[in-house]
Amino acid sequence: MTITRPRGFRAAGLAAGIKSTGAADLALVVNDGPRDVAAAVFTSNRVQAAPVLWSREAVADGRARAVVLNSGGANACTGPEGFADTHRTAEHLASLLDVSAQDVLVCSTGLIGERLPMEPLLAGVAAASEQLAAGADSDAAASRAIMTTDSVPKTAEVTTASGAIVGGMAKGAGMLAPQLATMLVVLTTDADVDATIAQEALKAATSTTFDRVDSDACMSTNDTVILLASGASGVMVAADELTEAIRAVSADLARQLVADAEGASHDVHVVVRSATSEQSALAVAREIARSNLVKAAIFGNDPNWGRIVSAAGCVPEAVAPFDVADLSVTVNGIEVCRGGGAHRDRSEVDMTPRETLIEVDLGAGEATGDIWTNDLTHDYVEENSAYSS
Amino acid sequence: MTITRPRGFRAAGLAAGIKSTGAADLALVVNDGPRDVAAAVFTSNRVQAAPVLWSREAVADGRARAVVLNSGGANACTGPEGFADTHRTAEHLASLLDVSAQDVLVCSTGLIGERLPMEPLLAGVAAASEQLAAGADSDAAASRAIMTTDSVPKTAEVTTASGAIVGGMAKGAGMLAPQLATMLVVLTTDADVDATIAQEALKAATSTTFDRVDSDACMSTNDTVILLASGASGVMVAADELTEAIRAVSADLARQLVADAEGASHDVHVVVRSATSEQSALAVAREIARSNLVKAAIFGNDPNWGRIVSAAGCVPEAVAPFDVADLSVTVNGIEVCRGGGAHRDRSEVDMTPRETLIEVDLGAGEATGDIWTNDLTHDYVEENSAYSS
Repeated sequence: MTITRPRGFRAAGLAAGIKSTGAADLALVVNDGPRDVAAAVFTSNRVQAAPVLWSREAVADGRARAVVLNSGGANACTGPEGFADTHRTAEHLASLLDVSAQDVLVCSTGLIGERLPMEPLLAGVAAASEQLAAGADSDAAASRAIMTTDSVPKTAEVTTASGAIVGGMAKGAGMLAPQLATMLVVLTTDADVDATIAQEALKAATSTTFDRVDSDACMSTNDTVILLASGASGVMVAADELTEAIRAVSADLARQLVADAEGASHDVHVVVRSATSEQSALAVAREIARSNLVKAAIFGNDPNWGRIVSAAGCVPEAVAPFDVADLSVTVNGIEVCRGGGAHRDRSEVDMTPRETLIEVDLGAGEATGDIWTNDLTHDYVEENSAYSS
Repeated sequence: MTITRPRGFRAAGLAAGIKSTGAADLALVVNDGPRDVAAAVFTSNRVQAAPVLWSREAVADGRARAVVLNSGGANACTGPEGFADTHRTAEHLASLLDVSAQDVLVCSTGLIGERLPMEPLLAGVAAASEQLAAGADSDAAASRAIMTTDSVPKTAEVTTASGAIVGGMAKGAGMLAPQLATMLVVLTTDADVDATIAQEALKAATSTTFDRVDSDACMSTNDTVILLASGASGVMVAADELTEAIRAVSADLARQLVADAEGASHDVHVVVRSATSEQSALAVAREIARSNLVKAAIFGNDPNWGRIVSAAGCVPEAVAPFDVADLSVTVNGIEVCRGGGAHRDRSEVDMTPRETLIEVDLGAGEATGDIWTNDLTHDYVEENSAYSS
């Protein structure tokens, strides 16, 4: 009970037969109103899947009545024919719900470069729509239907002080990157809010949550974060209160994505402090988070500050000013590097907890930035060489 | 017989006891002249090991008489004491050879953050110097003494049309990156050339060879490429002829470094064509070469063009202009992607050869750029989580 906890929403999920395994692969989320406000943030990868191209246009007016999400195929790099498939999908659900196709957003996830099996997909849309009509909606089924390499569904919810609710579901693991992860996220709220506020709140929330998850340093073709607002609570939530609630749900979901990253054995939090600006801090944090040598060391339970410092040293001076002689590195609370050199012994660090905290102090300013990532493990290699996507 | 094939050079290598394993860990290369021209290129990592700091200054006058290289310790992040150790090393060899300390370059490789064991190191320098004095020099021993995770020594040589010889030895595997790899390279030539020409030739050669090797996308703290010119052949080689010879030896060594990358099962050549500029082509090639998803797919013998296209899409438009709809990807000669979508089936690609050739055509211009990398394997993870550096 998460994306349908806010009043005014229904959701359904089922196995349409898109995935050859017979696992659930189609989800619907419908906004029954009274308002039909929508906002969205998409991948910045220049290669955009057909559903992303469609949904960008469809949400541009700040309105949407439904979202249809499929796993089992990304419908990316499928050309005009793939776009037509997305359009048909939107049209089909629109006619069943008696809304405009422009008010139906579409998300897809799965293998790149293959056309979706439209017959089962459209039949699945109809079946799911029937479930909704029959009152047999299930947001749990919806959150499962969007899973690909996820081992668990991810959901979260928050209630604002004023009584509006924000719920959310997400899928994504691995192939995470800056400016969004390979994720599909649907957030719902029964707050009474207009489209401009909704878009600003979503952007602000995304920038400090999903944007801070960096597992592969490679942006996906399909990333989408959607926010639907029904207004059904009748509560007119102030912009900052709404932003904070969306941020909290997003942070929770983002943390769940990190915890479920493909094959990871550690969730790694890289916090860079005393930078000249937040951007500088983030640049250093990302460089560390992307270092295969740092991440392999963490997998080996080695708090290897030398590799962390090496990674920081790859960031150009103009991007992040700092003096190497001022660097300090603390891993799980033990300051293993101070003044750019060895300090406490690495053997003092307890690397066994699932979460590894790496704190780097640049000694150059007052700003902080943080990034989440995962370690580089055998399972990661196995999953990403065996699973073709 | 490689770095000592050019006339005027002697080299030695032995086990000084720096490495606890007792493996060879100290090498000397001496230029007997008549000329003492030297050039060098160093890491662009802002964290620079003590030997890099020393050698930059020592080679600034375009002259050097000897190089001392140790493995078993990088002497990086060791502060002023570490720098003093490098200085002592140079002074010690200088006194044994009766030259100025400023004419002795120093290179180190190994773990970051630990002081070198100076007693055995200096004793080793003396012992190696004695070998040279006794005529028992061995460039083969030298090329072995600089190895760390290398499984084989790397050497190469070329003779110019005019009769001068260029030789070289290199160490390096893994932790490779743009603008140099974690490598130590010593190139020798008996060409009669002045320092300015030597520096320009080295920079030109490095930029299209060592700079094009990208295994970890993380620059090292110790990378150094040195060129020594003795003039002993009496042959005054034209600048472009010398540049080409140095380039050829460097390309050979760089290719050997790729072939010996830690735990790799494929050598991956990423060639980007039809870009608006060489820099654009290189930006796209590097992004592909750094993608863990691309490299894991290659390890799984999967010519996954979707991931390759996704990686290309991460490069900002301003850095590499191209239209996604014009992209084509050819793997080992099979065009698996054309016009930004699927073309020939992936199953047609023979992924079994050690070398994987990925050709991406951007359809945007006339320029080409290429990068070498390796696939992401279980062995890589194993070696980099077990071996602390």
